[in-house]
Amino acid sequence: MYSPPERLLLGPGPSNVAPSVLQAMNSPLIGHLDPEFIKMMEEIKSMLRLVFRTENEMTFPVSGTGSAGMETCFVNLVEPGDEVVIGVNGVFGMRMCDVAERCGANVIKVEAEWGNIIEPAAIEASLKNRRPKLVAVVHAETSTGALTPVEEISRITHEAGALLLLDTVTSLGGCPVSIAEWQVDAVYSGTQKCLSCPPGLAPVSFSPRAMEVISNRNSKVQSWYLDINFLANYWGSERVYHHTAPISMNYAIHEALRLVIDEGLETRWARHQQAYEKLKDGLANLGLTITSQEGHQIWQLNAISVPTGANEAKIRTQLLNEFGIEVGPGLGPLKGKIWRVGLMGHNATDANVEHFLEALSKCLA
Amino acid sequence: MYSPPERLLLGPGPSNVAPSVLQAMNSPLIGHLDPEFIKMMEEIKSMLRLVFRTENEMTFPVSGTGSAGMETCFVNLVEPGDEVVIGVNGVFGMRMCDVAERCGANVIKVEAEWGNIIEPAAIEASLKNRRPKLVAVVHAETSTGALTPVEEISRITHEAGALLLLDTVTSLGGCPVSIAEWQVDAVYSGTQKCLSCPPGLAPVSFSPRAMEVISNRNSKVQSWYLDINFLANYWGSERVYHHTAPISMNYAIHEALRLVIDEGLETRWARHQQAYEKLKDGLANLGLTITSQEGHQIWQLNAISVPTGANEAKIRTQLLNEFGIEVGPGLGPLKGKIWRVGLMGHNATDANVEHFLEALSKCLA
Repeated sequence: MYSPPERLLLGPGPSNVAPSVLQAMNSPLIGHLDPEFIKMMEEIKSMLRLVFRTENEMTFPVSGTGSAGMETCFVNLVEPGDEVVIGVNGVFGMRMCDVAERCGANVIKVEAEWGNIIEPAAIEASLKNRRPKLVAVVHAETSTGALTPVEEISRITHEAGALLLLDTVTSLGGCPVSIAEWQVDAVYSGTQKCLSCPPGLAPVSFSPRAMEVISNRNSKVQSWYLDINFLANYWGSERVYHHTAPISMNYAIHEALRLVIDEGLETRWARHQQAYEKLKDGLANLGLTITSQEGHQIWQLNAISVPTGANEAKIRTQLLNEFGIEVGPGLGPLKGKIWRVGLMGHNATDANVEHFLEALSKCLA
Repeated sequence: MYSPPERLLLGPGPSNVAPSVLQAMNSPLIGHLDPEFIKMMEEIKSMLRLVFRTENEMTFPVSGTGSAGMETCFVNLVEPGDEVVIGVNGVFGMRMCDVAERCGANVIKVEAEWGNIIEPAAIEASLKNRRPKLVAVVHAETSTGALTPVEEISRITHEAGALLLLDTVTSLGGCPVSIAEWQVDAVYSGTQKCLSCPPGLAPVSFSPRAMEVISNRNSKVQSWYLDINFLANYWGSERVYHHTAPISMNYAIHEALRLVIDEGLETRWARHQQAYEKLKDGLANLGLTITSQEGHQIWQLNAISVPTGANEAKIRTQLLNEFGIEVGPGLGPLKGKIWRVGLMGHNATDANVEHFLEALSKCLA
């Protein structure tokens, strides 16, 4: 059997998961239409609603990774020729544009410098004399460490008569996310970041307003696998066979969500904030800074400046090989300029921060 | 933690898996770009080539279930307006038509009665005066138990200048599948049938000829998540980040493939044949028959006639609740008329056949 090395996963994901989450996957398989499995699916839906803070009926995990969640939102909401405004301040905003264009959308980009947030005023300006179907933003931009505030963008979006689509892949479970209060119409996430579950599922939630827009489509959803009409029949009360749900991964998310709810969302968020503050202080002592916009830094994903003269890739490899610590590189314009250090879910602890700072200082010495 | 009941999974999938496959998922996570993970990916690709019997470079598991594998093949090969011939003799042929139409294909159906094979002559007739881009058939039609022979269809398809696309979801690992010898251009499978791995991944393989057709596309692939150009960069030598691979599921398929190769394909096929023959004999003793076309019955998925006067659903529920045995119902025109009994992978044993026959005879008494 393949035996992986022990790693402390402080990159942009996956994060390490609690032992009980791994153990959950060790349970024997049952059928995807077994009444016992269906009971468990109901519990997953209920727990996901608590974690997303929504009462949306249509809340469940898509059988793919976070990017499949992104695609699920776009293929269901967008029809060819629809106008879509997308905030772009990193890799995942760019990815949204690509996905939306493949659905035939007419994409209007609202761009910001990588590391900065999408300013509500910029979204507002783009909505002058325009009534798009959808405004889409990334809450926590994993490629840069910037946390875009959602509430004002939501107000502006709805005043323009559009739906709001939100990426919470890195934010869910690590910092405040409140789908009902923020009036988000479609949201997706991943399992492998602050939920501390292995990658493989993409929690999504659609508001009744979004579901109504979908039910009034003129064309079929271009993806059969991600068609919400089918998925609603399987995850809803009908239980009509669509695809074979990933049984073991659903065991894992069930246990991971149970741990999140057991800890309490506010407690969990506070733990992430505390780890971030400790990291930031420690970095300051090493003369290092977090490069994303001050006041809008993601607690759970930190873009750390590579000091002049240091070899970004070499130190990253040294962290992995000598200390068993994975951190992420910068992407696009930030390549070679930052390390991305995640303190996500199970990993957001004082001990991990201390261990990382010690290892980094040795590498920089 | 959720604790599922013990089940003997003799439905159309998932099947039970070997203990070591469950245990593999208990291994700690490592990163999806970790050099150690990349080594393991290479081993998965090599083992998949052995199991598919192909040397296709582009052979890897898609990060979704079998249906995502189907969609991967169609979205990459088909462009709007392309003509596609599809054999339809059950649910999965129908599904292929739906998926292909969502890609903008002009679909020509070659239909056969449910339970029968797609006759090569019927494919040949459909290709008269027609040069489609693609001919697609389901090898083992899970909804009916019929095994369509591939070699002659492949010859006819290539003579017409088309590519051959094959569904091996239920056949791979349970009966002869030989992608190179049969000159199949694109093939997909699932993990949860005769590979005896939990559901969640879809092994696919594309021939160099198929890859050339894809590289000459006029339009972008409509799915970002399933775009083979991106997937080739991640699963190939480039290792460019696309999506976060489902780490634990890849541990599982690695172990499941290791077990298949350790047993040997021919031995494994023979084990499935033996279980089928034993089941068929036992059914005859009970006055029951397998309803799919004689001479073309799938060893690993048996469509059993429901005797007159027996209540199909009630007996299926009784098998589950009293004996812990899951079997599947008929679908579409076969609803209420058959039970679908899978003897797949780990489950294809004499002991399971005996246990099932005993339970069924008690239910019928």
